[in-house]
Amino acid sequence: MSTPLRVAMIGAGFMGAAHSQAWRTAPRVFALPRDVELTVVAGRDAGRTAAAAARWGWAESTVDWRNAVARDDIDVVDVCTPGDTHAEIAIAALRAGKHVLCEKPLANSVVEAEAMAAAAEDSPARAMVGFTYRRVPAVTLARDLVADGAIGELRQARAVYLQDWLADENAPHTWRLDKAISGSGALGDIGAHIIDAVQFVSGQRVDAVSGLLRTFVTERPAGSGRAPVTVDDAAVFTGTLSGGGIATFEASRVATGRKNALRFELSGSAGAIAFDLERLNELELYRAADGPTAGFRRILATEPEHPYVAAWWPPGHGLGYEHGFSHQVKDLVEAIDGGHRPRPSFADGLQVQRVLAAVEQSAGHGSAWVPVPA
Amino acid sequence: MSTPLRVAMIGAGFMGAAHSQAWRTAPRVFALPRDVELTVVAGRDAGRTAAAAARWGWAESTVDWRNAVARDDIDVVDVCTPGDTHAEIAIAALRAGKHVLCEKPLANSVVEAEAMAAAAEDSPARAMVGFTYRRVPAVTLARDLVADGAIGELRQARAVYLQDWLADENAPHTWRLDKAISGSGALGDIGAHIIDAVQFVSGQRVDAVSGLLRTFVTERPAGSGRAPVTVDDAAVFTGTLSGGGIATFEASRVATGRKNALRFELSGSAGAIAFDLERLNELELYRAADGPTAGFRRILATEPEHPYVAAWWPPGHGLGYEHGFSHQVKDLVEAIDGGHRPRPSFADGLQVQRVLAAVEQSAGHGSAWVPVPA
Amino acid sequence: MSTPLRVAMIGAGFMGAAHSQAWRTAPRVFALPRDVELTVVAGRDAGRTAAAAARWGWAESTVDWRNAVARDDIDVVDVCTPGDTHAEIAIAALRAGKHVLCEKPLANSVVEAEAMAAAAEDSPARAMVGFTYRRVPAVTLARDLVADGAIGELRQARAVYLQDWLADENAPHTWRLDKAISGSGALGDIGAHIIDAVQFVSGQRVDAVSGLLRTFVTERPAGSGRAPVTVDDAAVFTGTLSGGGIATFEASRVATGRKNALRFELSGSAGAIAFDLERLNELELYRAADGPTAGFRRILATEPEHPYVAAWWPPGHGLGYEHGFSHQVKDLVEAIDGGHRPRPSFADGLQVQRVLAAVEQSAGHGSAWVPVPA
Amino acid sequence: MSTPLRVAMIGAGFMGAAHSQAWRTAPRVFALPRDVELTVVAGRDAGRTAAAAARWGWAESTVDWRNAVARDDIDVVDVCTPGDTHAEIAIAALRAGKHVLCEKPLANSVVEAEAMAAAAEDSPARAMVGFTYRRVPAVTLARDLVADGAIGELRQARAVYLQDWLADENAPHTWRLDKAISGSGALGDIGAHIIDAVQFVSGQRVDAVSGLLRTFVTERPAGSGRAPVTVDDAAVFTGTLSGGGIATFEASRVATGRKNALRFELSGSAGAIAFDLERLNELELYRAADGPTAGFRRILATEPEHPYVAAWWPPGHGLGYEHGFSHQVKDLVEAIDGGHRPRPSFADGLQVQRVLAAVEQSAGHGSAWVPVPA
Repeated sequence: MSTPLRVAMIGAGFMGAAHSQAWRTAPRVFALPRDVELTVVAGRDAGRTAAAAARWGWAESTVDWRNAVARDDIDVVDVCTPGDTHAEIAIAALRAGKHVLCEKPLANSVVEAEAMAAAAEDSPARAMVGFTYRRVPAVTLARDLVADGAIGELRQARAVYLQDWLADENAPHTWRLDKAISGSGALGDIGAHIIDAVQFVSGQRVDAVSGLLRTFVTERPAGSGRAPVTVDDAAVFTGTLSGGGIATFEASRVATGRKNALRFELSGSAGAIAFDLERLNELELYRAADGPTAGFRRILATEPEHPYVAAWWPPGHGLGYEHGFSHQVKDLVEAIDGGHRPRPSFADGLQVQRVLAAVEQSAGHGSAWVPVPA
Repeated sequence: MSTPLRVAMIGAGFMGAAHSQAWRTAPRVFALPRDVELTVVAGRDAGRTAAAAARWGWAESTVDWRNAVARDDIDVVDVCTPGDTHAEIAIAALRAGKHVLCEKPLANSVVEAEAMAAAAEDSPARAMVGFTYRRVPAVTLARDLVADGAIGELRQARAVYLQDWLADENAPHTWRLDKAISGSGALGDIGAHIIDAVQFVSGQRVDAVSGLLRTFVTERPAGSGRAPVTVDDAAVFTGTLSGGGIATFEASRVATGRKNALRFELSGSAGAIAFDLERLNELELYRAADGPTAGFRRILATEPEHPYVAAWWPPGHGLGYEHGFSHQVKDLVEAIDGGHRPRPSFADGLQVQRVLAAVEQSAGHGSAWVPVPA
Repeated sequence: MSTPLRVAMIGAGFMGAAHSQAWRTAPRVFALPRDVELTVVAGRDAGRTAAAAARWGWAESTVDWRNAVARDDIDVVDVCTPGDTHAEIAIAALRAGKHVLCEKPLANSVVEAEAMAAAAEDSPARAMVGFTYRRVPAVTLARDLVADGAIGELRQARAVYLQDWLADENAPHTWRLDKAISGSGALGDIGAHIIDAVQFVSGQRVDAVSGLLRTFVTERPAGSGRAPVTVDDAAVFTGTLSGGGIATFEASRVATGRKNALRFELSGSAGAIAFDLERLNELELYRAADGPTAGFRRILATEPEHPYVAAWWPPGHGLGYEHGFSHQVKDLVEAIDGGHRPRPSFADGLQVQRVLAAVEQSAGHGSAWVPVPA
Repeated sequence: MSTPLRVAMIGAGFMGAAHSQAWRTAPRVFALPRDVELTVVAGRDAGRTAAAAARWGWAESTVDWRNAVARDDIDVVDVCTPGDTHAEIAIAALRAGKHVLCEKPLANSVVEAEAMAAAAEDSPARAMVGFTYRRVPAVTLARDLVADGAIGELRQARAVYLQDWLADENAPHTWRLDKAISGSGALGDIGAHIIDAVQFVSGQRVDAVSGLLRTFVTERPAGSGRAPVTVDDAAVFTGTLSGGGIATFEASRVATGRKNALRFELSGSAGAIAFDLERLNELELYRAADGPTAGFRRILATEPEHPYVAAWWPPGHGLGYEHGFSHQVKDLVEAIDGGHRPRPSFADGLQVQRVLAAVEQSAGHGSAWVPVPA
């Protein structure tokens, strides 16, 4: 095995925990071409970052992300911070010649995302945006089946991402509710995932949208008072697809009882495919050609023939949420070693950003249709 | 028991079969205040109508609906024809002093529906429009629970009605694909049901919409050639609700693999409720107050405490599709006998018609929002 | 159409209601060779029986079943009484030359069942026992698929019938808890159904059993006191099948939360099939030959190609519990008219009775295996 | 943090991979009192073991398990070998003063298991048997709910563990099909899990059993020929519980279409609880006290209040199969550090072994009931 890839992770929150688990795990499960070293994690608070480093298995911690990004002994920068800092960090890393993995959504604005995509385009390094759900085996399988024609010509997609952690009007304020930091609410946080999922599985782009945003709880407890919520609780939008179909989307963080229900269903001329992240080891497939015994098949996506699965456990022994991240590490390491540009690229992330921006624009103009530039 | 209600049914297609089953069954299951007589069925083809009458248990058949409606020995007229004839028949019946049950959607246009609602308003007779799914016990139970505050303040509704009988591009042309007869496609045929369902269960009106219609297969086999499809295959629309929430709707007859999936989910501040017509004896309820043991409860709506159920079978012995119609007959007969105006009234049907028209208008104007008059 | 079949129904309880619905409905839905007349219903209490007759649509009522059975204007006797009277009534009817439909289990003892089967064998009339769940379309479809080889060679069957109406220790005493009247508890009441279901779908006989019976609540409220429960609350047994497989059975009326869960799963060398009466319009099928996209298919057994369905509603418009009885009437009328002996015959009912007796015998002898005579 | 626990893992197969993942992960997720070092893995084949060590993150590898167990720098021995070697390795380790984690079933015979339990009893070290499914959060939650009275008095348990990797008669021979190595077939391999699950969740012992074993495919491909299968493909048995209830069990490796379906349902006087390992993040709970809105609640066992979950991801972000092992490591490390004896102990493992032996004995004697010593 050649020299290991040395990683600097910027950000020490929930995403940092998930990414750490992936960096530790991927080389222990997959036959990667290069090993991985968890070199340094950068956070805002020295004590908490040091504690996170110790817990998560990073050799060092720092509060100076610029230094971490610039170090000679770093090959890969993993950006796990809120969206308002993605552009600065990722561009700095690319300019320093580092490979970059950046959490989604790529940025808080199209302008930032364009700059990031340009920086990636200009760099010999690899750049990848973290739409990890692509790498849940059932989702990758869905993409493969659709590409193989299992559902025929796509006509309709319907996708929702439903959570309920903001359903309680007394759920506390967080940075995710501050537009200046998070860019948007449910739209960018989870809506970005269903845009990517539909585009990835269908192989088509969303090329125009009509949208509506809604905030139901306009201020929330913060400290001893209440702070304004400046982002959407729910985003609903309709889109047209580059292949001629139509799609509906809903992202909500007030969908009481739904915890992490990223669901999509694609209906084609010959079949349909459906997925629910709350049951992430399952894929439903309907083939019209099955005739009178046709029915949605509940496929346990845990067979060795299924994407990523052969390296894991026997059939029926399901994977958890975090291994979308493990598979992301695998694919990134292979891309770095193999010299090809991984997907989803920063250009892919930019395109999702354009869809998000178009939804916001449409929502601000009475749901008028807004085209999404290719 | 007082004298029986004598019924004339106009229309001898699939709906006629379902209504006949209901007219026969309701008085044998429920303790109705008046019995029912299946007096005459009117159809277009004498032979086929006579055969239908014999099979379904009607005393007579005719091809002259005007005569059937005018007969002195008829108390109730049941309109089961395509939408283009609803207005003429229903208004004639009301003017002849008959009680009227009219299939949904009430009409093919708002103008017709207004005339029908006016005729109903002017008449001492009872008039009811056939949104039968209100009377599936699980749906009525959902309404009762929402009215009792089980889900708190409603924020979001999501409703779909998915079928796939037009997914095959070689499925034959029918009158349902001819706008002149059917008024619209998926929109009026099945979209009307989800509009009514959301409004009924929530107790709120859709007061504005933004919509999109799409026809994927533009001509279909007819005789030895192909005939143009002049209605939508799928209709998707977003609405605002009179209580401040938002709703999404999708009606599709090309949703491969879904046979009769009228599904709705209402998310409120304290809980949620979900239903799927393909599993019509079940209702799902989530109560946030259940805390760490909260989960969507799969309620079998077959307990004697549930609406309509006590007259039927023991718990767990589910009802079929047709008994929404049986319950409709029960409620109509009780309204006639009790002297109260039944719901959904023609005014309710008119309101749904206005939503449908607003969707069409919005779809024709780039999905611009169109208000729905109260 | 030739002269109608004139029916006398003996018994006016819950089963009487279900049978009445079927006698009324089958001729209105199916193109039967002969029409049906609901001539007379016999019950124990004159007033209640007359009321039932009026509600259910029978021309006459009586408290004298012997007279009803003997009348010249009766063609068919439908026995819906508790098990202790089946033999006497059915044999009298057969000797009077009447066709007989008898509720399950056929009798309360093998001796009675043998006499009934002998009487049926000796008679030119038709005799049928009421295992109606065979005639739920999904169950008949399961049988057809298994017969067509869809699951290969059967190895294991697992069947449960779970109800919970006796879970509450204060649920009142009824005749169903008195061994003298009901013969047994969960075993004969609902265990008989799963024995028949497994045998019917597999095409194999249970040829030996090892069983255990258990009564958890040994006395229950009756009048102002409590009466002893002399039957089982739950019966569990293992069986061997005539084709070499094995089967497990559980019948329980104390399975809290399960209302009418007759479930079976048959596992074969090439596939599997599963059914749940709480979702009676669905059948699950797994075909190993589907390879990496294999999964249990949720077939909505509502397609026109499915058994009995073409006469009913469009796809996805499910049937209710009662139409197993409607289909039973259809098949019985066709057998009477066609001159063939219908299944399940009294001999089939006797065979189930022998299985029940063998379970009781095994349970009384430390679960020792007891062979079931062919 | 005090000095790390140094681990020797014996066995480098599938279980070794799962245990390695757990040893690596637990200290990075939970705030353990002591860190863990993956010191050495012992296997049969030097090359393969070295490769496994490199992949899985062990510092060293060896083919000499005796040496590994005896080393001064080892604190914990983790036994992941086939059952025929458990006793020798575990007893050697205990005598060397090491803490021992031993895969299930504890041994291939009661005699071996007794010796192991005695060795554990005599040792100051900790000994634990690897019934990891206890530590799936939903299963631990089930135990807690039952202990809190959520289902009232337990009456019936039904448990199955269904797999299908032997359904194909040409699936190859393995050591798991050789009784000399594996002890038994489905019975010990997966039947042991459902025995433990029912006992753990109910808090009761199986105190007598009546069983049946069956081998459907008696020889399988091995090299260029076929080798005899000397273990069961399926085991079905009934048990009585120490609290007065009854239980049914089925373990099968020929249940076509079921991949890893460890399912149990416990029915009590006040409720019921159900689990399916194929959907391991869900628990179903029915509370009779919910009255007319009672229904099985689908609880996503991913809330911070649920066992083990707070250290992981947000609600709805499910865990995978392997983290039962991670939780096992957590609990073992805490027991070692805290000085208490962990459960399931070797005595617990012996008790399961006695149930397994009783099933085999019963199966060999016509399913006669065999008591299980306490």
